[in-house]
Amino acid sequence: MPIIKDIKTILTAPEGINLIVVKVITDQEGLYGLGCATFAYRELAVKSVIEDYLKPLLLNRDVSKIEDIWHLMYNNAYWRNDAISNNAISGVDMALWDIKGKIAGLPVYELLGGKSREGVPYYKHVNGSTLDEITEKVESLKKQNVKHIRIQWGLYGGIPSNLNTPPNSEPGFYLNPTQYILDTIKMFEHVRKHCGDEIELIHDIHERLAPSDAIYLAKQLEKYRLFFLEDPLPPEQTKWLKNLRSQCATPIAIGELFNNPKEWEYLIKERLIDFIRVHISQIGGFTPAKKLAILAEHFGVRTAWHGPGDVSPVGHAANVHLSMHVHNFGIQEWCGFSDVMYQVFPGMPYEKNGYLYTDNKPGFGIDIDEELAKKYPIKTSITKWTQTRLPDGTLVNP
Amino acid sequence: MPIIKDIKTILTAPEGINLIVVKVITDQEGLYGLGCATFAYRELAVKSVIEDYLKPLLLNRDVSKIEDIWHLMYNNAYWRNDAISNNAISGVDMALWDIKGKIAGLPVYELLGGKSREGVPYYKHVNGSTLDEITEKVESLKKQNVKHIRIQWGLYGGIPSNLNTPPNSEPGFYLNPTQYILDTIKMFEHVRKHCGDEIELIHDIHERLAPSDAIYLAKQLEKYRLFFLEDPLPPEQTKWLKNLRSQCATPIAIGELFNNPKEWEYLIKERLIDFIRVHISQIGGFTPAKKLAILAEHFGVRTAWHGPGDVSPVGHAANVHLSMHVHNFGIQEWCGFSDVMYQVFPGMPYEKNGYLYTDNKPGFGIDIDEELAKKYPIKTSITKWTQTRLPDGTLVNP
Amino acid sequence: MPIIKDIKTILTAPEGINLIVVKVITDQEGLYGLGCATFAYRELAVKSVIEDYLKPLLLNRDVSKIEDIWHLMYNNAYWRNDAISNNAISGVDMALWDIKGKIAGLPVYELLGGKSREGVPYYKHVNGSTLDEITEKVESLKKQNVKHIRIQWGLYGGIPSNLNTPPNSEPGFYLNPTQYILDTIKMFEHVRKHCGDEIELIHDIHERLAPSDAIYLAKQLEKYRLFFLEDPLPPEQTKWLKNLRSQCATPIAIGELFNNPKEWEYLIKERLIDFIRVHISQIGGFTPAKKLAILAEHFGVRTAWHGPGDVSPVGHAANVHLSMHVHNFGIQEWCGFSDVMYQVFPGMPYEKNGYLYTDNKPGFGIDIDEELAKKYPIKTSITKWTQTRLPDGTLVNP
Amino acid sequence: MPIIKDIKTILTAPEGINLIVVKVITDQEGLYGLGCATFAYRELAVKSVIEDYLKPLLLNRDVSKIEDIWHLMYNNAYWRNDAISNNAISGVDMALWDIKGKIAGLPVYELLGGKSREGVPYYKHVNGSTLDEITEKVESLKKQNVKHIRIQWGLYGGIPSNLNTPPNSEPGFYLNPTQYILDTIKMFEHVRKHCGDEIELIHDIHERLAPSDAIYLAKQLEKYRLFFLEDPLPPEQTKWLKNLRSQCATPIAIGELFNNPKEWEYLIKERLIDFIRVHISQIGGFTPAKKLAILAEHFGVRTAWHGPGDVSPVGHAANVHLSMHVHNFGIQEWCGFSDVMYQVFPGMPYEKNGYLYTDNKPGFGIDIDEELAKKYPIKTSITKWTQTRLPDGTLVNP
Repeated sequence: MPIIKDIKTILTAPEGINLIVVKVITDQEGLYGLGCATFAYRELAVKSVIEDYLKPLLLNRDVSKIEDIWHLMYNNAYWRNDAISNNAISGVDMALWDIKGKIAGLPVYELLGGKSREGVPYYKHVNGSTLDEITEKVESLKKQNVKHIRIQWGLYGGIPSNLNTPPNSEPGFYLNPTQYILDTIKMFEHVRKHCGDEIELIHDIHERLAPSDAIYLAKQLEKYRLFFLEDPLPPEQTKWLKNLRSQCATPIAIGELFNNPKEWEYLIKERLIDFIRVHISQIGGFTPAKKLAILAEHFGVRTAWHGPGDVSPVGHAANVHLSMHVHNFGIQEWCGFSDVMYQVFPGMPYEKNGYLYTDNKPGFGIDIDEELAKKYPIKTSITKWTQTRLPDGTLVNP
Repeated sequence: MPIIKDIKTILTAPEGINLIVVKVITDQEGLYGLGCATFAYRELAVKSVIEDYLKPLLLNRDVSKIEDIWHLMYNNAYWRNDAISNNAISGVDMALWDIKGKIAGLPVYELLGGKSREGVPYYKHVNGSTLDEITEKVESLKKQNVKHIRIQWGLYGGIPSNLNTPPNSEPGFYLNPTQYILDTIKMFEHVRKHCGDEIELIHDIHERLAPSDAIYLAKQLEKYRLFFLEDPLPPEQTKWLKNLRSQCATPIAIGELFNNPKEWEYLIKERLIDFIRVHISQIGGFTPAKKLAILAEHFGVRTAWHGPGDVSPVGHAANVHLSMHVHNFGIQEWCGFSDVMYQVFPGMPYEKNGYLYTDNKPGFGIDIDEELAKKYPIKTSITKWTQTRLPDGTLVNP
Repeated sequence: MPIIKDIKTILTAPEGINLIVVKVITDQEGLYGLGCATFAYRELAVKSVIEDYLKPLLLNRDVSKIEDIWHLMYNNAYWRNDAISNNAISGVDMALWDIKGKIAGLPVYELLGGKSREGVPYYKHVNGSTLDEITEKVESLKKQNVKHIRIQWGLYGGIPSNLNTPPNSEPGFYLNPTQYILDTIKMFEHVRKHCGDEIELIHDIHERLAPSDAIYLAKQLEKYRLFFLEDPLPPEQTKWLKNLRSQCATPIAIGELFNNPKEWEYLIKERLIDFIRVHISQIGGFTPAKKLAILAEHFGVRTAWHGPGDVSPVGHAANVHLSMHVHNFGIQEWCGFSDVMYQVFPGMPYEKNGYLYTDNKPGFGIDIDEELAKKYPIKTSITKWTQTRLPDGTLVNP
Repeated sequence: MPIIKDIKTILTAPEGINLIVVKVITDQEGLYGLGCATFAYRELAVKSVIEDYLKPLLLNRDVSKIEDIWHLMYNNAYWRNDAISNNAISGVDMALWDIKGKIAGLPVYELLGGKSREGVPYYKHVNGSTLDEITEKVESLKKQNVKHIRIQWGLYGGIPSNLNTPPNSEPGFYLNPTQYILDTIKMFEHVRKHCGDEIELIHDIHERLAPSDAIYLAKQLEKYRLFFLEDPLPPEQTKWLKNLRSQCATPIAIGELFNNPKEWEYLIKERLIDFIRVHISQIGGFTPAKKLAILAEHFGVRTAWHGPGDVSPVGHAANVHLSMHVHNFGIQEWCGFSDVMYQVFPGMPYEKNGYLYTDNKPGFGIDIDEELAKKYPIKTSITKWTQTRLPDGTLVNP
């Protein structure tokens, strides 16, 4: 079997979001794999883990032993289940799966057991500053055969006013939870009225409400038949789902913030969620993601992998391969990309008439134009949007 | 470190309610602390505990060892978790925190880890004998930027009529539970209609209903989006909250009567309440209150410390210091005080534009004018309002 | 029916322990009742509650309505389940039962439904500084037909040595938990070897061990077939009994410190204890004690009312009346009293050939010689024995 | 209040283990704080998080708002509960507590509520390649008044032989679980026989056994009365403790690998462990550690903070400050340090006659000689000891 000769970390930001892609190069001419290690807000720390720690650990190891190497990486720092390390591990892990597919001459979904469907349904995000802007965007997507749409009035947490903050309050995004709740109910009333009952609607609380408020909102939205309500609660407080579940039938999707099995184990085995929504690189890559999909299948929970712009196209390719294969697939989040991304990442997934597809090439079927990638250097920043506050100045979940 | 040279118990009633304040005097010139020991209906027994038992126990001890002294007081009578003793302990405990802050030259909230917000939102109480009186008072508070209002039609338990009590019934406050339930629903209908959807509304059942009636009312009120429903059940029957929670999403606040950890442990770890509302001196003071706040934080339960007129201004200062600091703060009850209280207790918390503030002086930032306090002597009384009865004469929870 | 004309609080200490007895005097010539309100370490505060608050509340009320008056007293201070108030309430409550019996011309156990047995078995306490001293005392009690004996090597917590405390440690009783555990096992080995297998043995951990140590000791003692192990855990940590119960069959008795229903409810309904051991006046008197006995009967838990020297003879009389009646009786703790007590309290229970008896007079059958009682005035003290510390200085449960 | 003017990351390895210390410098002349950010196996990634992300986020912020800043850091990368980020956060958080103490002119344990003991008992590690070597070392420590000793025969996992690995097995530390189990039982038999029953013994399985083997060993060791058994199970499998607890009373200590509240919440509230043993910087610093201690206190679980050589002396100082204060303290792990560490870190904790102490200076009372620290540069390495394998080559927990 080929062995690992080099591991490169490629940082690039073609659309302004920092992406991290790992390239595992073998001793076999032209045989390499790509993996997504994108933790967009800690990219330099992820790079350090890959280059300073994983690379020396892995050089000259046999590329075929993905399972063994995954555990080797997982345990290597002794402390584990780590957002930064998981992304680094994911970069290598996905790259090894890409290589495995290339060695087999097969797309990765074929290695898993083949396709369970011919195209991957997805949902897209819509927000607007007015109700009419929202319904117009929804109608426009309907025309493109997009059948699942996430709607938000304003940013996550809504469009606050009447904040009456005390003097000397810290800077940040200030939230008016009551106004957001009332506005969201109005938005659903409006969108259902104007866009019909058949379109599948999603809404993302983005953990920005207290548990009792989230439960109240989930219950009020029940009558609008959501496809799912996203992140009503932060990872620390998911046990409040027991209360929520006893109140209403609104389907629940949670998980983009998870990076520790303890966060999903209870929710899945107790059937407290309907969709598991992890960001695959955050949980350590393709190997744990396919195991998580199987755990979920046992308990009737469906997949809805996290898929916004802070997943690299390589990660999106992994998402789509999994979504094409797993039996208990639910929906795929898809943000859509500009042409420049398709130039930097040839072979990345694309949408067509309401479904996502990948090229049926070996591995994940995606490549990177490294020279072009260099033209889009990354920039670090303090993430202002994670500084969300209540009117009195209390910092809340982002 | 300074040692305790004297402990004084000050009884005063500037607004007619019996207040108990403890003054711990050190051997260091001018260094003393104040604490709230206000159990307004057992003030002489509290005084006895402080003067006859705690004072001889504590003289000459090092003021810095608050944690050790708290446990020493807690265990001293062998029997513990005692409303009277807890208040006595609280008086000393808060005074030691006040001294600690003065030694550090910092407000107490700084010792805890600093401010989590710049002002403390609060709720105020409104009652009226007519629905119009209630809406007028609500509108008036809205103009003062008060955003959270507790509304009651009549006293706790409503305005009863048609009681048809049997002959020779004992004296007391007679309650008509059905009338109270129906009137309360009417009141919310009226207030939401006239005062809008955005104001945060609270209602206090004050434990005066049977469990099934409390659950029925909680469910009927759900559509009026309460900020919380207060004390739907007495401490003996809080496990009925499992039933209530499976019925409705009305947020629940409980705890002003608690004085034993067994009363809150289950409710918090099972997330059966949304707000913990203890009277800080009743649970033994500042030391256990800050621990309780942290327990609640782990489970996503927010604080709403009890804050009516039977908390002394020193206790209100402690409330506001905790409310300024704890991350999982929810709301602060605030009754408002007359000028005479500000004269007897210089430096006590004040409200401004919808928020509470304390002077940022060392310790709790509050003092007492002992000469002036003497002009308002206390009076013991039998508490008639705790003699609440059903039409047939059955005594119920007060 | 007669009404309450006066309530007197009698403080006396014939054997050095502060006792509190309440005398409720009716408007009917010569008709009065006695109750135990003995909280030996807060006697003046109990007196204040009785005289300053309960007496004005109760004067002129009908003595027959014991149930109603109990709830009236329980709710009167709004805050409840209070060691001090419960004792005050108990004083009145027992006195009303005493009066009820006198009105009926029957012993109180007759009002409850009559005797379930003809004499009340009891256990007595033995401690010694050497193993031989302990076995000698056990043998001596066996000869007096005492069949249940609690054995302790040294005081509660044993005879510590090798403490190696750090400099400047606070004063107190220092404990060496490991030595205590090892010594206690040795003691049982010794006593079983020398005193035989048939005598019923009891041991009291008195909450002085950490949960893991208490469980270890309970398990090691299993083979010595204890009648029960007393207070392995403090009230705050009784849920560790689930662990203990899964480890060993050593019977468990708990409860002398309880004063809140939340402390016993869970233990009884989950059958985590074998004997409920409350101090009757601490839970509010005869009325709640007979209800607690009935709750325990439903779940197969037996009674073992707390009965050391800090229960007054009136309280012992109430204990024996309950123990004579309740079907699910287990054992009665009995400390034995000197002659002077029988002079101060004529008619108090006595032991004879291994059983306890009361005079079969109306009520509790006990009286007090108030003039003689005055000759034994009480003294307040700081309870040094509640200042128990580990070698490093940590204060532990007393 | 002072503001943050600079944040420096100091990497040094005076004893060969990579240490990371954060220095937060204020705008006030000479006022700075130190914190431990030591993740010894990912030091460069931790440095990146501090310098590339936290420093720009925090410059010019008010040092007094520790609670708010902690949440700001916790949420800043959106993904959280991250071993690398938690260490970075810890570095800043502890430094802010150090500054808080200096502003107050008080040791940090004073801010928390003062000392609960006068010295901090600790345990030390002993291993040996023969049983006699182990008993000799135990006897030697006993003479130094060390009362708690962790004993291991060989390295974690024992001294394997007869491995019979298949050809071409990967390099790593090979383990023979059965031999290790049998040897460990022999070791306890030997040590108890030669060193007596009173010394407190600890053993660390270090997660290296399958659950059924760990439960078997825990049960066999019960009769040797361990102070605790450390890490019988990995974080992923702690729910096997329910099985273990139903089998034996061996006390359990777990937690050095934890970095997510979901890992400890269940264990503590269900009382499945006796000691919580987190590495304070791994859970995010002093702020969450003091909250975790309080959570544990509610449920009767004691603290035993992780304290080997991969905690920096600043972290050890924080450990000792917490251990001096928290009421529910159990034991402190202490590895002992060479003179060079005392030179690089003046004021670090020291042992004396069986107890640990800190200088009672303001803050954590510890400083760093940065010039001297530079003489001991760090070195990255692949951690070979985390590559632990069964005879057949299966990688197991390290």
